Parts: sequence; C-alpha cells; structure tokens
Amino acid sequence: MDIDVTRAAQLLSSADCITIIAHQKPDGDTLGSSFGLMYALQSAGKRCRVLCSDGYPKRYQFIYGEYVPEEFEEQFVVAVDLADLQLMGNLREKYEGRVDLSIDHHRSNNKFAKENLIRPNYAATCELIYMVLINMNIKISSKVATALYTGLSTDTGCFRFGNTTASSHICAAELIGAGADFATVNRLMFETVSLERMKAEIKIKASLELFFGGKCAVMYITDEIFDGTGLSDYDLEGTANLPRQLEGVEVGILIRERKDQGECRVSLRSSHDIDVSTIAAEFGGGGHIRAAGCTISGTRTVARDTLLNALKQYMEAIV
Amino acid sequence: MDIDVTRAAQLLSSADCITIIAHQKPDGDTLGSSFGLMYALQSAGKRCRVLCSDGYPKRYQFIYGEYVPEEFEEQFVVAVDLADLQLMGNLREKYEGRVDLSIDHHRSNNKFAKENLIRPNYAATCELIYMVLINMNIKISSKVATALYTGLSTDTGCFRFGNTTASSHICAAELIGAGADFATVNRLMFETVSLERMKAEIKIKASLELFFGGKCAVMYITDEIFDGTGLSDYDLEGTANLPRQLEGVEVGILIRERKDQGECRVSLRSSHDIDVSTIAAEFGGGGHIRAAGCTISGTRTVARDTLLNALKQYMEAIV
Repeated sequence: MDIDVTRAAQLLSSADCITIIAHQKPDGDTLGSSFGLMYALQSAGKRCRVLCSDGYPKRYQFIYGEYVPEEFEEQFVVAVDLADLQLMGNLREKYEGRVDLSIDHHRSNNKFAKENLIRPNYAATCELIYMVLINMNIKISSKVATALYTGLSTDTGCFRFGNTTASSHICAAELIGAGADFATVNRLMFETVSLERMKAEIKIKASLELFFGGKCAVMYITDEIFDGTGLSDYDLEGTANLPRQLEGVEVGILIRERKDQGECRVSLRSSHDIDVSTIAAEFGGGGHIRAAGCTISGTRTVARDTLLNALKQYMEAIV
Repeated sequence: MDIDVTRAAQLLSSADCITIIAHQKPDGDTLGSSFGLMYALQSAGKRCRVLCSDGYPKRYQFIYGEYVPEEFEEQFVVAVDLADLQLMGNLREKYEGRVDLSIDHHRSNNKFAKENLIRPNYAATCELIYMVLINMNIKISSKVATALYTGLSTDTGCFRFGNTTASSHICAAELIGAGADFATVNRLMFETVSLERMKAEIKIKASLELFFGGKCAVMYITDEIFDGTGLSDYDLEGTANLPRQLEGVEVGILIRERKDQGECRVSLRSSHDIDVSTIAAEFGGGGHIRAAGCTISGTRTVARDTLLNALKQYMEAIV
C-alpha cells in the first residue's frame, strides 16, 4: 500500500520496540536516515534499534559512535532508503514479509513492505525522514540534524547534482537551524581522502588518454593499482567521474580491467548531448543519459578500441 | 554612512545610468553580483553597465556572455563585493570618491562609498544583492538567478564551508525556484579542471611528505611545475587545501618556492585544534584559525624545516 507522510508519522507514533533496517554496503543516506530516525524516536521515549547486514564504514562513525543494537522483542519494522529486499543482505531471510513500513526515495523501490512511503522526487531519504519527524512533532536535536544532513549532503554531492531541489535547500536550512554540524560533515565527506586513495587517484589520472581532439578522455584502473594497498574497488567509488572532469571532454570513460575474469567493467559519463546509456546498451549494459556502464570482454586495450569505435559516430556529430 | 537593505533598494530604484564596479581579479561572487544586478536593473528599464579593471576569466563566460559595456553619461556608481578602493585596480583613479553605494559582505570593507550596505554575516555578496532586488520588487529571471547562484555557490564552496548559513540555503532555494541552472554552474565551477591543472595537481600531490606520525602533511609547488604549461599561480588557486585533505592530517602545509625571489610563500591549513594564524604570525604572516599564510626566506627545504620546528610544540601536544 502507498501511504503519505502523515500516515507514516501515525504508524511510527503508535509503534514501540522498533527495528530500523539500513541497506547493505551502507552509505550516508541510509545511515543518516536510520540513525537520525532512531535518535529521534528514542528522544520521544521509544525503544528502537538499527540493523544492517554489513559493518558500518569508519568514515561515518561521527553518526553511529560506539553503537550496539539494543535487544528487545520487536513490534514494528521500518526499512529506510532500501529499494529491494535483496539489499537487506543476510537480514532478508529473517525480515522478508515482515517489514511494516518502508521509507525511501528510489524510483526503483518495489514496495516490498506492508505500507510504503516512496517519494522519488526527494533528493535523499533523509529529507523524507525529516518531513515525517516534523509531522510527528518531534523536536530535532543537533545529533538528529547532523545525521539527516549527512544523507542530504552525500546524496546531492553537497547540493551540486541535478537531483537537488529547492526543497532540499529548505531542508538543509532547517537542519542547520536545528544545529547540524554541517561544516564537519562536509569536511569528512568531501574533503578527506586516505593516503592510499590519493595515490591510486594519481595513478588513474596519470593513465589519461585523449581521443577525438580531446572530446573523449579515457582512464584506467588496473589490478596493479590495488597491489599492497589494502584498497578494494569499493574504496575507489566516485573515480568514474574523473575523466569527464577535464575541460572540453564530452565523454569520459573509466575502464576497470579485471585480468582474472578476462573482462573490463566500463563506466561512461557525458557532459551534454551524448546519451551514453545507448552506447552502454550496445554491450548489454545500461544506466542514465549522462552516467552508464557495461562490461566488455578482453583486455583494457580491446575494451578501449571497441568503445572508441562505437563512439565514433556520436563524436563526429559534435564538432 | 551605513545603510540597510531598504535604503539600498530606494537608492537603486531612483537611479538611472548606473555603473557597477566589480573587483580586480574577478571571482564568482563579484561577477555574479555585478552581472546579476545589471541584468535585473536592465529588466526594470534602467540603463546599466559593469566595469572591471581586469579581463573576465573564461570559466565565467556563462555569466557575462559576449558582454560589451554600454556607453552613457553615468549618474550613479555602485561597487559590489569590493572591500577596498585598491581592489578597483586601474579604475581607482577615475572612481575614488565617486562611489555612491557599496554592497559587500567583507568584514574588512573600509566603507569608501557615500552609502555602505556591508553585511559580514552574509556568506556571499550575491545573497545581499538578492535581498536588495526582492526589496525593489524586481522579478528574478533565470538569467539573474543563475548569476546570483554562482556567487553564493563559489563563496561557500557549494555550501560546504562554515560560512554557509541557513539563510544561504533559503536564498539558494529561492534562486533555484526562479530557474537558476545550478547543475551547470556547479559542474563548471567544481567538476571541471584543465588538463594542465590536472597535471600540476598530480605533481603537487606526488611531492607529499608526512611528519609527526602523519599529523602534518607538506606539499610543494616549484617553479618547474609551471614550465611550458602556460599556468600562473592564479591558476593553482585552491591547491593550498590539498595537504590537509589527507585522512589524519591536523596541519597541512603547501610551500610555493620562488627561486628568483629566494623565498617561499607558505599556506597553512588546520583541521581542528591548532590555530595556524599564530604560527604564521611568528613569520610576519597572518590569517584565520584554520587558514593562514606567511613568507619565509630560503629554499623549500629551509622553509619546511623552519615550520616543522615552529610546529613541534603544537603537534606534540595532540597525541
């Protein structure tokens, strides 16, 4: 059943012993939503806990602190920022069919809960959680505000991305008014990088090749980049945007060569006119107009030449 | 004389043939303020022009387009985002003592105009211009909104920096509502980098040295980084933040060695507890708690050792 903010607020107001489920490989929005909601409900006198199938990344420790989930006989289950049962990881077995309420902003949410508050026009689930809490008349503490601000900021690239709306800014204004420590959040989220990641980025950028008169930039991630660093692909999130950042580049391509699998994972990004999802689709991939991906068999050189060939008609059309 | 927003709006409402002066080495806030104000006043039927002693950087062309200042006998002069007469560059000679109104957010503004609307609590002069235009009942077009959004976004590091306020977000919400093309502005301002700058950043990052168990990071800009690139120091703005971005770093130091002058310009950035302005002051420099600078005679190695020595007591205090 689809519900509105008022109904979600009513459900939570009358519930107690609430389990909040965050999605696996947790990010800023699912952690900000789940912990922000938990702290707020606890301040309203409810027993409450957050569960997640995976561990919490250390960079979000300012949100979860030294958290240990409380033990109780749960009476109500909420999933936040969780689009599909599969994203529950190993919690799925226990919770499939048992989620009372889902609060999410993903268009792809398949409404697995009994009641579903799904709003794809919201930039972040945290924004939606904020609306629910306001509707419940819960006073937003600075701890709750900081958690919710984190999801809003990370899911909008700190208000840079096109998914940002006027409402996102209004929400940010109110969270700052409630004491969100936004400067610390943004420094940790956007201006802090590990030594190993900085070194990996240097190598990725140094691999740059330009084609079509500088309108197409290609960079590579090879297995060697990981050697002895302790980094995983997960730690290099966001590097797919690097090739497109170069001035004059219309299509940026990042090729992750997996020698063991004999294939390359390809990320495509475009600046303006070129719909990279159609190019990705030629190779069985997909995505959005300006951000898409696919997998191509062979070495990184094979993958590059295959892509450049497919790109040719588009690049020659834009002079 | 200090005035309020209403008085500034009255002055502009009754004026015509208005010259708006932007500061030299124009940035996003002075250009967004001056062109945003000009477009808005023109839409209200006034003759208006922008003047600046320096050329307009190409990266802001989406604001000024193919602008050529109109010729007229000016009746009113406004300075925007301009803290001191000296920042008028070669326009100072003509305009000293002839500025009717100054609109600015710099605390250091020395009130050189006849009437001064100075508000240091505003994150950007663009925010203040917006308040004046609203007070004048001028409808904000998408062109004006995009110009004003640019200054708000660049002066707050896209809402990341501590100078951002709840009001900055409210202003952003209203500008987006008025049609500001924020996604394009932010892509151009924060996600676009020239090939030469990308290469220079790789070299700066590769020069990294760590001290005090990783709590202090030092990077260098040498003359060689500029060789054959066409880059100037102006083009490397913002690199002073790079050393401090490393995880665990409390003090980041960027040393710009000027061999021809036998000295080094030093930028200091801190994360938390250390007041780098007191360290800069030891060498005749100054600044803010978390961002300061000074000049030290000698090579980069001499400058580094001098600074590490001065830092020792602070670094050993934080374990």
